[in-house]
Amino acid sequence: MNKAEKFFWPIRVYYEDTDSGGVVYHANYLKFMERARSEWFRKLGFELDQLKQEYGILLVVTALSISFTRPAKFNNEIVVSVEATEIGKASMSFKQDIIDKNNDGDKNKQIMCSAKVKIACLDANAFKPKPIPKKVLEEIKHGRISNS
Amino acid sequence: MNKAEKFFWPIRVYYEDTDSGGVVYHANYLKFMERARSEWFRKLGFELDQLKQEYGILLVVTALSISFTRPAKFNNEIVVSVEATEIGKASMSFKQDIIDKNNDGDKNKQIMCSAKVKIACLDANAFKPKPIPKKVLEEIKHGRISNS
Amino acid sequence: MNKAEKFFWPIRVYYEDTDSGGVVYHANYLKFMERARSEWFRKLGFELDQLKQEYGILLVVTALSISFTRPAKFNNEIVVSVEATEIGKASMSFKQDIIDKNNDGDKNKQIMCSAKVKIACLDANAFKPKPIPKKVLEEIKHGRISNS
Amino acid sequence: MNKAEKFFWPIRVYYEDTDSGGVVYHANYLKFMERARSEWFRKLGFELDQLKQEYGILLVVTALSISFTRPAKFNNEIVVSVEATEIGKASMSFKQDIIDKNNDGDKNKQIMCSAKVKIACLDANAFKPKPIPKKVLEEIKHGRISNS
Repeated sequence: MNKAEKFFWPIRVYYEDTDSGGVVYHANYLKFMERARSEWFRKLGFELDQLKQEYGILLVVTALSISFTRPAKFNNEIVVSVEATEIGKASMSFKQDIIDKNNDGDKNKQIMCSAKVKIACLDANAFKPKPIPKKVLEEIKHGRISNS
Repeated sequence: MNKAEKFFWPIRVYYEDTDSGGVVYHANYLKFMERARSEWFRKLGFELDQLKQEYGILLVVTALSISFTRPAKFNNEIVVSVEATEIGKASMSFKQDIIDKNNDGDKNKQIMCSAKVKIACLDANAFKPKPIPKKVLEEIKHGRISNS
Repeated sequence: MNKAEKFFWPIRVYYEDTDSGGVVYHANYLKFMERARSEWFRKLGFELDQLKQEYGILLVVTALSISFTRPAKFNNEIVVSVEATEIGKASMSFKQDIIDKNNDGDKNKQIMCSAKVKIACLDANAFKPKPIPKKVLEEIKHGRISNS
Repeated sequence: MNKAEKFFWPIRVYYEDTDSGGVVYHANYLKFMERARSEWFRKLGFELDQLKQEYGILLVVTALSISFTRPAKFNNEIVVSVEATEIGKASMSFKQDIIDKNNDGDKNKQIMCSAKVKIACLDANAFKPKPIPKKVLEEIKHGRISNS
C-alpha cells in the first residue's frame, strides 16, 4: 500500500505554550501535533470543517502514546512530522515527531518528542464510528505531499 | 435596584496556568474569571447548558478591560470575585477581582488583577442579541448568594 | 510494597476546556490529570514548589499513553483518579482514570479516559535525573490518603 | 515622532482555539495578539529571550481592553495587526485588531476584535519597572517594518 509521504509543519514556541518550569507544557505538544495533522489534511486537499459539512464526519483522537525526550523552550523553532502508518475502515494511525529545527548536529538529539496517535472517523451527530469517505481514503493512500 | 451579592470563587494555580516568565500567563486570568461567573450563575440556580437548551441563549463576552497589578504564581491559592454592576435587557456587566488568598496583611496588596466584563445574551443559533429570560433577570436582581 | 491509596480529585468542565466539536479538547484531559497528581502530592504532604526550593527537583512527565473512551462535555462533573503503580529511584508511574461522576449506572460506562503516566525526578537546573528525596519516597510507599 | 509601521501577522484557527460555543474562546484572542507582538519585535530585530539575557528585562502586559465584534471559527484565516501607539520610558501601548482575511467585501465587517494593550518593561528578577533599552527604543521609533 502506498501512503501519503511524510509531511513537516513548522511551529514557533510562544509564551502561551510554556510553563513556569521554563519549557513547553507537556500537554501543549499534543496541540502542536494536531495543528500538523490539520495541515496534512489540508495539503491532501481536505478541510476538516468541510468534511463535517459534506460527509457529516468528525475525526477524533481515540488513543495516543507519547514520549518526551528533550524539552522545547520559548522562541524555539520546531518542526512537527506527520506520517500515516495505518489506514483502517474508520480509523487511522499516525507517527509524529517534534524536531528541533535549530539543532543541526547530532540527528539523534533533534527529536524532542515522539508519538503514535490513533484517530477515529465518527458520525458528527451520533459520535459513533463511520467509514472514512472513499475520496479521503484514496487521497491518503495515493496522494503526494510536496513539502514546499 | 437590588443585585445579587458579591460572590467569591477559590481557584488553585497549576502548572498549566503559568508561563516561562514564572507567573500566570495573562490570558489565563480571563479563564479564571469565566469559571467564577459560571459558578455565580450556578449559585443563582442556573446552569449555562440548560439555559441554552431551555431558552436557546448563549452568554458571551463582548468587551472587557483588565489591569494586572501583581502576578499569581504556581501553587497560589487565589479567589475570584463576581459582582453584577449593570443588568440591561440583553446584556450584563460585571466587576471582577482576583485576590491573593494568602496575603492577609495590607488589603491593597491583595488584588492581583481587576476587570470589567460585559456579557451579551445571544440567540444560540443566530448569534444576535436576545433578551435575558425573565426568570434569570429576577434571580440576578433579587437573588441571594450565600458564600458558604 | 505498600503504596499510597487510590486518590480521587473532582473537576468541573468549563468552556475553556471544550472545543467546537462540543466536547473536551483531547489535550485538556492531560491538564486534568496533572491537577489531580498535584493534589495527590499535596495530600501526601508535599507542595511541588517547596520540593523545588528544598531539594532542587522538578517532577516532569516523560511518557504517557492514554485512551479516550467517552467524551466529557461542558458543565460535566468528572473525577480524576491517581494511583501510583511503580516507584523507582528517580521515576514514578501512575495509572489515572477520568470518571463520569453523574453516571451512576453501568460502572463500565463511567470511564471517560484512562492513562498511564511516567514521571521523572529531575535536577531543576541541569534537567537530568536525580533521586527522589527519601522523605517523599517514604510518604508515597507508606502514606495514607483519606479521600475526605 | 516616527513609529514603526503597522505590522500584520497571519494566524490559522485550530480546534485548540475554539470552544463548545462553536467559535474561538474569548481568552484565546489574547494569545493571538501576543503572538503577533512577539513577531513584531522579531521583525524589528529583537528576540524576547535575548532581551531577557542581554538586558535582564521582561515585557509584560499590565492592562488591556478589548471588544469582540464578530467571532472567528475553526479553520478561519485571520490576521492580527500590531501598531505601537505610545512609547514611554518603561512602557509601551499598542493598538491591535484581529481581521477576517477571507472577508474581502465590507471593510467594516472585517474586524473581529479590537484591543488596546499596555506593556511594561520590568526587571526580570525584581519584577519592577526598568527603562526600555535605548537600542530597542530607537528601533521602535525609527524602525521600518516591511510586511513581506
